[in-house]
Amino acid sequence: MILRDPVHGLIAFESDDESIIERLLATREVQRLRRIRQLGFTSLAYPGAEHTRFAHAVGTAHVMKRLAYRLRDIHEALPFWHRLSSQQTRDALAAALLHDIGHGPASHMFESALPLSVPHEVWTDRIVLDSSSDVHRVLASEDPDMPARVARLIAGQHELPYLARAVAGTFDVDRCDYLLRDAHATGVRYGNFDLEWFHRSLRFAPLAADGSPPPLAIDGAKGLAAIESFVLARLFMFQQVYFHKATRSAEWMARMALSRALHCMRDSVRLPNTPAAFVAAAEGREPTLGEYLELDDGVLMGTLHAWESSRDDVLASICKRLRARELFKSIELVGEAQCEPKARARAWEIARDISREAGLDPDTHVGLDIATDTPFDDSKDTLVVVYSQGAARKPGDVSFLLGRLNGESLTRVRLIVPGEIRDRIQQAIGA
Amino acid sequence: MILRDPVHGLIAFESDDESIIERLLATREVQRLRRIRQLGFTSLAYPGAEHTRFAHAVGTAHVMKRLAYRLRDIHEALPFWHRLSSQQTRDALAAALLHDIGHGPASHMFESALPLSVPHEVWTDRIVLDSSSDVHRVLASEDPDMPARVARLIAGQHELPYLARAVAGTFDVDRCDYLLRDAHATGVRYGNFDLEWFHRSLRFAPLAADGSPPPLAIDGAKGLAAIESFVLARLFMFQQVYFHKATRSAEWMARMALSRALHCMRDSVRLPNTPAAFVAAAEGREPTLGEYLELDDGVLMGTLHAWESSRDDVLASICKRLRARELFKSIELVGEAQCEPKARARAWEIARDISREAGLDPDTHVGLDIATDTPFDDSKDTLVVVYSQGAARKPGDVSFLLGRLNGESLTRVRLIVPGEIRDRIQQAIGA
Amino acid sequence: MILRDPVHGLIAFESDDESIIERLLATREVQRLRRIRQLGFTSLAYPGAEHTRFAHAVGTAHVMKRLAYRLRDIHEALPFWHRLSSQQTRDALAAALLHDIGHGPASHMFESALPLSVPHEVWTDRIVLDSSSDVHRVLASEDPDMPARVARLIAGQHELPYLARAVAGTFDVDRCDYLLRDAHATGVRYGNFDLEWFHRSLRFAPLAADGSPPPLAIDGAKGLAAIESFVLARLFMFQQVYFHKATRSAEWMARMALSRALHCMRDSVRLPNTPAAFVAAAEGREPTLGEYLELDDGVLMGTLHAWESSRDDVLASICKRLRARELFKSIELVGEAQCEPKARARAWEIARDISREAGLDPDTHVGLDIATDTPFDDSKDTLVVVYSQGAARKPGDVSFLLGRLNGESLTRVRLIVPGEIRDRIQQAIGA
Amino acid sequence: MILRDPVHGLIAFESDDESIIERLLATREVQRLRRIRQLGFTSLAYPGAEHTRFAHAVGTAHVMKRLAYRLRDIHEALPFWHRLSSQQTRDALAAALLHDIGHGPASHMFESALPLSVPHEVWTDRIVLDSSSDVHRVLASEDPDMPARVARLIAGQHELPYLARAVAGTFDVDRCDYLLRDAHATGVRYGNFDLEWFHRSLRFAPLAADGSPPPLAIDGAKGLAAIESFVLARLFMFQQVYFHKATRSAEWMARMALSRALHCMRDSVRLPNTPAAFVAAAEGREPTLGEYLELDDGVLMGTLHAWESSRDDVLASICKRLRARELFKSIELVGEAQCEPKARARAWEIARDISREAGLDPDTHVGLDIATDTPFDDSKDTLVVVYSQGAARKPGDVSFLLGRLNGESLTRVRLIVPGEIRDRIQQAIGA
Repeated sequence: MILRDPVHGLIAFESDDESIIERLLATREVQRLRRIRQLGFTSLAYPGAEHTRFAHAVGTAHVMKRLAYRLRDIHEALPFWHRLSSQQTRDALAAALLHDIGHGPASHMFESALPLSVPHEVWTDRIVLDSSSDVHRVLASEDPDMPARVARLIAGQHELPYLARAVAGTFDVDRCDYLLRDAHATGVRYGNFDLEWFHRSLRFAPLAADGSPPPLAIDGAKGLAAIESFVLARLFMFQQVYFHKATRSAEWMARMALSRALHCMRDSVRLPNTPAAFVAAAEGREPTLGEYLELDDGVLMGTLHAWESSRDDVLASICKRLRARELFKSIELVGEAQCEPKARARAWEIARDISREAGLDPDTHVGLDIATDTPFDDSKDTLVVVYSQGAARKPGDVSFLLGRLNGESLTRVRLIVPGEIRDRIQQAIGA
Repeated sequence: MILRDPVHGLIAFESDDESIIERLLATREVQRLRRIRQLGFTSLAYPGAEHTRFAHAVGTAHVMKRLAYRLRDIHEALPFWHRLSSQQTRDALAAALLHDIGHGPASHMFESALPLSVPHEVWTDRIVLDSSSDVHRVLASEDPDMPARVARLIAGQHELPYLARAVAGTFDVDRCDYLLRDAHATGVRYGNFDLEWFHRSLRFAPLAADGSPPPLAIDGAKGLAAIESFVLARLFMFQQVYFHKATRSAEWMARMALSRALHCMRDSVRLPNTPAAFVAAAEGREPTLGEYLELDDGVLMGTLHAWESSRDDVLASICKRLRARELFKSIELVGEAQCEPKARARAWEIARDISREAGLDPDTHVGLDIATDTPFDDSKDTLVVVYSQGAARKPGDVSFLLGRLNGESLTRVRLIVPGEIRDRIQQAIGA
Repeated sequence: MILRDPVHGLIAFESDDESIIERLLATREVQRLRRIRQLGFTSLAYPGAEHTRFAHAVGTAHVMKRLAYRLRDIHEALPFWHRLSSQQTRDALAAALLHDIGHGPASHMFESALPLSVPHEVWTDRIVLDSSSDVHRVLASEDPDMPARVARLIAGQHELPYLARAVAGTFDVDRCDYLLRDAHATGVRYGNFDLEWFHRSLRFAPLAADGSPPPLAIDGAKGLAAIESFVLARLFMFQQVYFHKATRSAEWMARMALSRALHCMRDSVRLPNTPAAFVAAAEGREPTLGEYLELDDGVLMGTLHAWESSRDDVLASICKRLRARELFKSIELVGEAQCEPKARARAWEIARDISREAGLDPDTHVGLDIATDTPFDDSKDTLVVVYSQGAARKPGDVSFLLGRLNGESLTRVRLIVPGEIRDRIQQAIGA
Repeated sequence: MILRDPVHGLIAFESDDESIIERLLATREVQRLRRIRQLGFTSLAYPGAEHTRFAHAVGTAHVMKRLAYRLRDIHEALPFWHRLSSQQTRDALAAALLHDIGHGPASHMFESALPLSVPHEVWTDRIVLDSSSDVHRVLASEDPDMPARVARLIAGQHELPYLARAVAGTFDVDRCDYLLRDAHATGVRYGNFDLEWFHRSLRFAPLAADGSPPPLAIDGAKGLAAIESFVLARLFMFQQVYFHKATRSAEWMARMALSRALHCMRDSVRLPNTPAAFVAAAEGREPTLGEYLELDDGVLMGTLHAWESSRDDVLASICKRLRARELFKSIELVGEAQCEPKARARAWEIARDISREAGLDPDTHVGLDIATDTPFDDSKDTLVVVYSQGAARKPGDVSFLLGRLNGESLTRVRLIVPGEIRDRIQQAIGA
């Protein structure tokens, strides 16, 4: 099969090893990813961000294919038992395609909103391992052990650590695709890096004394800029997109709507058109796999729309605002003085008081949103830098840029409040 | 306001004239366009094609803004009563943003599927003119005559014909945006042209003897390539995307599902979760504006999903196939011998017979799909080409390429049939 | 070796077969191409067009490498004696790199200006075959027959016709690189096509009955747009760049300077700083290979600059104008009436008369410039189109666009005259 | 006038204020920039880097034009006496075009090679102010004071400090163009930033109490990423291109050739074809403006080529190597231990000793090359960051990235030595 992709240009899976991709694409579970956007509510801030987890999954498999080609170019340097076999390549391609198969609509929001909720990684595991899924059937028909192997690989476990890190690591195929794809869809031009150059700069680090498979390394003379720009691309995407105030606000509102709805259901308020998975959550039980797989962006949006006519005013109001894009506003807390735990807790209390005075339920109308990321941490990855001479070194030790970013955290602290009380709160807290 | 767009980069509406855009964007009717994809089912063939009519509407307004800047640069050449006024600019911006406001999900499919159905242009007209709409309210608050003026302009009527053609003509702002946007989202690289160069090459044709406003012209020494590549971009998009067999098949299947559903409803088969607009159609009455505006891609997909469990097997089966992306296959008829009306009718009959033999309802399982477009027709547009000396000339007379394409039609004829009987039909008709 | 290229991104020659490239790059003759611009005087019209034949040569070798990869992916379909061998791949890479090695500065101009001059193809042949050249030495050290094989391949002769056509044919690697590179450097955005998609769409045509190696074919279901856009890209580049009036004028002036200089030398006017190759031409003998290889853009420009102070006023004046970019102006003849041979000859005579009256030597001050190209001619190439069913067909028979362009010629006819008499001439001939 | 640029797309100078550009472009001094490459010897490392100072000059004027548009959009916020007048705009356009007019071939190399040599800024000043230049004549014909005003502005002096900084500052129009242009030509993709977004994010800082014109500011809510990516683009270009070992080596070799040549001339060794400017330098006098303007890349290359046949073996050898691209090799000193002054001096002495032993003159065969840059220094610029509320702040205080780079210096220390003694030296110094 061959298809056009706006990010990678041409995507082809034509060899025998790659044929697993085409069979997996035909499954219901992978097709469901067409109905889940990669960036949830982000299109409210960046109108172009409508791309789906399906396109991302295909792109990730493509990046893995290209990486596997590169690994085979360079694995002559290894003893044959450390080289990438045909079976391992198939596993890696499947793992790349399926790495996000367990995501629901706006997953991160979901997972924190639903009590007892199961993280998407667990759903991924279930979908791959549960014999009722199409995905499982396709994998098992290839080889009965394949589902288990693929599940382990997705979880970052493999006898070849370099392959495990390629699926789940600082510079993994997932990130390689989503950074480029999110940049393409949003139009944020800072999110680019040079994938081809990155792959071409890969080497294997020298063999360890204990004979274990060596980690991947970057050729310091060629590829340092490739990983520097990768880290920066990710940092820019966090600053510009993933931490965007409108997205964070919309996610928070949806989470509040969901909490409120569960609360209503537990109080026996009947809610129209509520999916079985939410009813399960309200009843304190885990949804079944089938119930979970019914969820997608369309179902979530349809549900929020239906709840606009619920009898619970608070719920109805949040849902209406969200659909009409009347998003809550953000008040950013800046500087150490405003952001340290006690200060932000105080600001939040002040905001809640003002909300109450204005007749707005503070639980659903005042959020304290803390977003944080560490762009680069040398201690978290095994990618090393090698030169024609001398020992392998850590990126943070040889890169001017990464040395200065190493271990540093980026944090954004915001209050999320309805527009009508925003100025009052801003004044009260002096932000 | 200022936002990032993956196609145009930076989009800003900051001047007084442009503030109408921000107010219109906040309306329910414009926000609804977020829930309707620009290219309907095309993402089944091009996974990136998830972009919405909302992003296109914003992009079209942006192109109009840039065009208006250009018109003001060059309208000094005109007597002042033919120049673009501030009011006309506002009208034009609003018309650009709203030109597709009446679209429903997969509109073209809808319009042919529903009896008595109203074309999207009529819905556009109603939304702009109906005093119950947010859009109407915003326009009328600016000036009570504005809704009527904008509606006329969207329909291609204006006292300045050059402005009318800019909204609805061969090289209109709608096409300028959608060609670039569809190319960006699908990754089809042939669909590009140079918008900036096109605008910069615009002039006014010499004034006619009767003093009527002159049409727009292209500076032949500068801009011929810009309009040639525009026409070619559109031709490529038709060949590669708009006429893609998978899209055409999916649209046809959705149309069949809808017809079948109406048929069922008229036969009093109860269908789950059917939107009021469809019920109205089944009852032989036009949907109300409110009912119509409830329709969007999510609602359509939700409905098709719900119909999977309807008691009508034919309906359930088509809906299941569509959701699982088991699309009907195409058999392309090529050459005069296969495509002329009698031959294609005969092929269709043969296919229907084979369908019947296979126990498949031919009405919903065998389609004859004829797609046609005329890439360039000199007689349809008033854009002329001017040089520093000599009279204005027609593009087809001065362009090597356009001269050879002028008036020529591109046609694709296909049978659309279930995969399981495809080979049998292909053999029987010898295609 | 690995290097960055603004057109192809990353260029790497790392395998054994590819190592010939690195050795050839180190030769004096290939390094000389750094000093010859790909597009001669074009940078006078497009300031970015400073790219060299060296960069083009490297890019062409890169395209050949990618093509060779593709041919090896698909040549399993052939009997083994028709497949691409390792030796043939090396020959093809060398031929791609060296295909233009014989070019001098502004070659096309040279060849028509110098009597007895030898076309660049002959110089290429000599450089490859002459045992005094570095290039010959490198090739022969690989294999004594290699120079001869490479020379034949550059000339389009090979036992595998599909390889011969890849080096010299309608869709050859030379064009693949220069179209993209010229577009990149000039900024003319119409000159793009999708190289990766083109390669991926290649197949072998079915084997002929006589067992001869099959020609390359395009998969009609995938790749028609790739070759259509290739043809269009080339057409656009001719219209916008290669036939640009400023370039044509500058080339004509340089040609006139050279003719005049030879004339002077034959009349024993001593010219300062004249390269040996020009002296040879004046003496009526062919330059030696060594003399020829001394020529490059720097030498040509230095010579023209030195001639500004020659005692021949006509020569000095043309050289001064050219360096100061006071280019002669063009009067375009349009339509059948102006362009047919008698009419254009008459226009030329009129221009010469006016030139004489103005005291300007008509031989060096009035040019009749006829530029012509046939964008696509189905009878000239063996690339066919294949489908999953049915016989191979000609591109012009299956492509809407190519069918309409097939065999059609694009011609531009211009008078080239000094600016000071341009208007007078224009009036006199009524153009 | 309107022209195509590969970096900015379309460049047009059409208004009255902009007409100065067209007149200046016709001058000999600006046309001379066509013959000087922007990046000197860099094309030896990046084959695409053939772009000229002429293209950069035009691009810089274009960026200034766009900036002036933006300044006029926002200068309503200022008292009218601080706004950009029409005259100041013309001055700024001329200054942008002419800012590098005094550059010679490979200028930085020149300035350090020639004793008594005058920095290019001084030549720029002379060209603008000397009444014999075409440039002066054009400027003075506009207004007799214009040459002086333009010269002051190029030097970063202006009554509107924000305009001075736009011509010569951290984020000046020169850098805006060269970063994009160098990235485009080399293919180094990390060197991009978003120029349009940068301009759009500009504001004026609040008026100071003393009423002086406010500096430019960035809207912190919109434009922080634009200046971050600007700084990073520059840093990447330094790391990847400007400090590239092959370029630095070639520059060093050219400098040695020049020193050696001057030395020879002073010793009365006759050198063939030596330009008057070099002769002047050897004679211990400054070249005249006319002599200086005769220098360009072609002349320099021609001279080095001519010196290949000089009787001084050392000079001839360096020139031959340079032309054949047999560049000296680099040994990078890394880490504090190797780079501190004493250690590097010791390494250099060792290398000189080995050179002597090998019979190679150490003065011309062993270089110690120290390249250094400070990517961002908050104390050097007046660009501040403003928010809707609160005081203006320094970029380093509000940007996660710039805060970590502020004041940090990037340094590369290398020995430059002939390839034949490279390994011996590397071993001896243990690098």
